[in-house]
Amino acid sequence: MSDFFSLKFHDNKLIFIDQTKLPLVEEYITTTNYERIAEAIEKLEIRGAPAIGIAAAYALALSIKGESQGLDEKFNIAYERLVRTRPTAVNLFWALDSIKRTYEANKNSATLFFLLINKAMQIHKNDINQCEAIAKNGVELLKDNSTILTHCNTGKLATGGEGTAFNIIKKGFELGKVKFVYADETRPLLQGSRLTAFELSKANIPFQILIDSAAALLISQKKINAVIVGADRIASNGDTANKIGTFNLALLCKQFNIPFYIAAPVSTIDTSISSGEEIEIEMRSTDELSFIKGTQITKTDYDAYTPAFDVTPYYLITAIITDKKVNKPPYSF
Amino acid sequence: MSDFFSLKFHDNKLIFIDQTKLPLVEEYITTTNYERIAEAIEKLEIRGAPAIGIAAAYALALSIKGESQGLDEKFNIAYERLVRTRPTAVNLFWALDSIKRTYEANKNSATLFFLLINKAMQIHKNDINQCEAIAKNGVELLKDNSTILTHCNTGKLATGGEGTAFNIIKKGFELGKVKFVYADETRPLLQGSRLTAFELSKANIPFQILIDSAAALLISQKKINAVIVGADRIASNGDTANKIGTFNLALLCKQFNIPFYIAAPVSTIDTSISSGEEIEIEMRSTDELSFIKGTQITKTDYDAYTPAFDVTPYYLITAIITDKKVNKPPYSF
Repeated sequence: MSDFFSLKFHDNKLIFIDQTKLPLVEEYITTTNYERIAEAIEKLEIRGAPAIGIAAAYALALSIKGESQGLDEKFNIAYERLVRTRPTAVNLFWALDSIKRTYEANKNSATLFFLLINKAMQIHKNDINQCEAIAKNGVELLKDNSTILTHCNTGKLATGGEGTAFNIIKKGFELGKVKFVYADETRPLLQGSRLTAFELSKANIPFQILIDSAAALLISQKKINAVIVGADRIASNGDTANKIGTFNLALLCKQFNIPFYIAAPVSTIDTSISSGEEIEIEMRSTDELSFIKGTQITKTDYDAYTPAFDVTPYYLITAIITDKKVNKPPYSF
Repeated sequence: MSDFFSLKFHDNKLIFIDQTKLPLVEEYITTTNYERIAEAIEKLEIRGAPAIGIAAAYALALSIKGESQGLDEKFNIAYERLVRTRPTAVNLFWALDSIKRTYEANKNSATLFFLLINKAMQIHKNDINQCEAIAKNGVELLKDNSTILTHCNTGKLATGGEGTAFNIIKKGFELGKVKFVYADETRPLLQGSRLTAFELSKANIPFQILIDSAAALLISQKKINAVIVGADRIASNGDTANKIGTFNLALLCKQFNIPFYIAAPVSTIDTSISSGEEIEIEMRSTDELSFIKGTQITKTDYDAYTPAFDVTPYYLITAIITDKKVNKPPYSF
């Protein structure tokens, strides 16, 4: 099978794969239009916090390409449009503000567009380097011939580089340390059975997908050597918010004495909060339980409990792997 | 909302609700044709071990209605057809054999058809009574104003009566002991979000559905007073096979010190096996992960780990509620 990429900036155009159609269709979209990129982020064609930040940075730079009149207004309209695409993506706000600072500092420069594109490319390059550093630090923890369980998608599709938790697994496979991977399907949006399975297949890593509730049986049968997942936000004490279902896996690992690892760039650590109790849990639309890929499966008037993520307490986490180092308890960031 | 029924025998016809279309469409099918009932069991239009057994008993009786020539051959063809409809449903084999014994003992009787129908009605009636007895025994364990979590479907749709675990919840609600219910959606076949939600809604019981992996967060927040589920097979030591995901809930209950109850008729207890280790875990088609209601969600060539059920060890079970009594540890059947 041919390789793929998540997003690429080439010849002043952004090219990205439409993640909503994966894995059934591999379709790339090429655009110079920031509005089209804003839509892609809203419709989850581009998803994963680092990938969203990078795409938005390119989009904001593209918003002034070829423009010379009313630059401030055009730039600000684009900024406001892009910042509204997703409600809680910290990387999005950070990347847009970084482009904005470059804009403010160089708004009278003849090479303004190129300076903005350069800044976006630098954000992208930093992410690639962080993914490599996370993998390098993470593989040290793996035993030879390990079987790994993961949740959600943390690979090339979610980042500008090769991924966070997924890149540890991939590098581990290349080094002979990982022999098999189990991927939770990850309801409700199925990032595991659609996206992680796609990436595992492309990397020729042997794997099976499973429904999320089957992990207990799998782990109890001693088939798993470690669980590695990503993170949305990490508190100063190590409490970690991540995709709903992560906490359940951490509890299972504790029960069956299996290492449970978090992998994320240091930028995910939020030192402004002391513990996970300060993290508000976002509730999603009940439609995510009543529709799958547009097919209605149950009534929309049935109420639902729909947390987007959960918080795994620090004491269930064996290590937090960042691009800087492997952090072990007691955590103190 | 009007009430509903799962299956009913009236005027020498079997009337059943098509469970594959629930909850979006409430469609009843009326038939005198055993082949149509066999198809309904195969296609899961009729599901739930007790409901399958009852429907098959009526079907086998109907196979000789109005026949006088070559009765033995016709009866045996129908028996062989019905026995092949589902691979592991103990109630199916037991109900068909019961009708067969009645046939053998009365094959020269002028009222043979009525004797067979009577036998099927008796099987149906026994199931109704068992459901009532389970509920009566189970509600004694509930505290006032309880919030209950359940998994899969164990209600009217799964049985000939009002259900097993579900009937405890329903009677508890009527008595003011249950105030709210959470229903796991129960991947892969979504019996929770489709069928249990339908039954809760019909009974006007306040509820929310949730993805299976969100139960950990819910239970950790102390929102649940007890988990009650059904059983497919119970070993002599209390080890209990049930729908995949049950074991995970039992582990969560242990971790957070919440009662975990199994509810099933005594016929579910298999004294021929001493422990759950003797229960072979059936693996299902990988299609259940790649298709939902006919919509393809991921590639069919991605391999999957597909256990149909798991075994919860006896030491995680607070009580096993049967139609005879409430069994508490140490279990010895």
